[in-house]
Amino acid sequence: MAGRVSDAVIRRLPGYYRHLRELEAAGVTQISSHELGERMNLTPSQIRQDINCFGGFGRQGYGYRVSELKGHIGEILGLTREHRVIIMGAGNIGCAVARYPSFSREGFRTIAMFDVAEEKVGRELDGIPVYHIDHLEEFLREHPVDIAVLALPKRFSYETLKRLYDCGVRAIWNFAPADLPHPQDMLVVNVHLMDSLQQLSYRMAHRDDDLS
Amino acid sequence: MAGRVSDAVIRRLPGYYRHLRELEAAGVTQISSHELGERMNLTPSQIRQDINCFGGFGRQGYGYRVSELKGHIGEILGLTREHRVIIMGAGNIGCAVARYPSFSREGFRTIAMFDVAEEKVGRELDGIPVYHIDHLEEFLREHPVDIAVLALPKRFSYETLKRLYDCGVRAIWNFAPADLPHPQDMLVVNVHLMDSLQQLSYRMAHRDDDLS
Repeated sequence: MAGRVSDAVIRRLPGYYRHLRELEAAGVTQISSHELGERMNLTPSQIRQDINCFGGFGRQGYGYRVSELKGHIGEILGLTREHRVIIMGAGNIGCAVARYPSFSREGFRTIAMFDVAEEKVGRELDGIPVYHIDHLEEFLREHPVDIAVLALPKRFSYETLKRLYDCGVRAIWNFAPADLPHPQDMLVVNVHLMDSLQQLSYRMAHRDDDLS
Repeated sequence: MAGRVSDAVIRRLPGYYRHLRELEAAGVTQISSHELGERMNLTPSQIRQDINCFGGFGRQGYGYRVSELKGHIGEILGLTREHRVIIMGAGNIGCAVARYPSFSREGFRTIAMFDVAEEKVGRELDGIPVYHIDHLEEFLREHPVDIAVLALPKRFSYETLKRLYDCGVRAIWNFAPADLPHPQDMLVVNVHLMDSLQQLSYRMAHRDDDLS
């Protein structure tokens, strides 16, 4: 891959992957930048530009081979390897993540969940064991993981992030509504639900600006 | 507000609101673009530019009044009015949304949930009634809502979106992993969980590019 890729392209990549997967499932083998752009609400030239970032697929006038491009983007996204995941917090969000069908399909394998609630600890959720958070360090010594999901109340999140870092975890998928400070060599990607809902209310409040 | 605001600024606005709320709660009354930038991982000049978009707050050398700026951004985000919300799907994601504490605090009031599962319909979740989805049209005739949350399996989402549109709902917060086609006068904001996780796996796969 040539050089550093812009954040905007990285943000769009999973969308490409999702649409190509749907197309493949629907039996489509070939697609033009025009058709793909229509599906994704992007211009054909933006599509060509994005895909060129990753080494130039497709030929003028022929479009892209769906499976080939999907495979290539999946590789770029790091989906060809398995990721071992733990989920911190077995509440609604933690359970929703654990049960999300496409996670395991794309190689994200949840090997344990951690919580403090007596009625959850010691049980299993769809085959995933739930441990007490006191056993985190002990567990991680035996079972190194790639990603920890933070699905805890905000007030516990920063402390838990530090414990995870000390155990060698270097990638966090954070659902707490906060930008958690973290060491430079730790990757944190946030799902800020309230931010997303506020984008909707912004657009609702300014709907008339757009129409005028 | 002056003219059309770029998508990038709209995406950042809820972050401003969140940080200003935290600062206010911590008793901070005044903040410079430099300090705010440090918290938000933006440059001071980007902060000033963003805030200027909305009418120019703060004075050279004095920084911003936290409460005033928060109030102003809250207004721009449409948070000064109440939004009536229904949640389609009482599974893990639907329940997580219903229980998210900051939603009601920011004026998003969930008045009903809809599902098809016998063990859920007819019950309440923290005081929110769960109805059978067959009663959607009847309910909406009596109780118009501003926002519908789609927290259903993907295969039911598009059909449900159409039913909501026919009942006059014009804003959708969608958790289904699909870009749902929708009429132009309907707003749809997506929470694509898998896209977010794939951004993390992308960054993990390319961590070494960044360091080199």
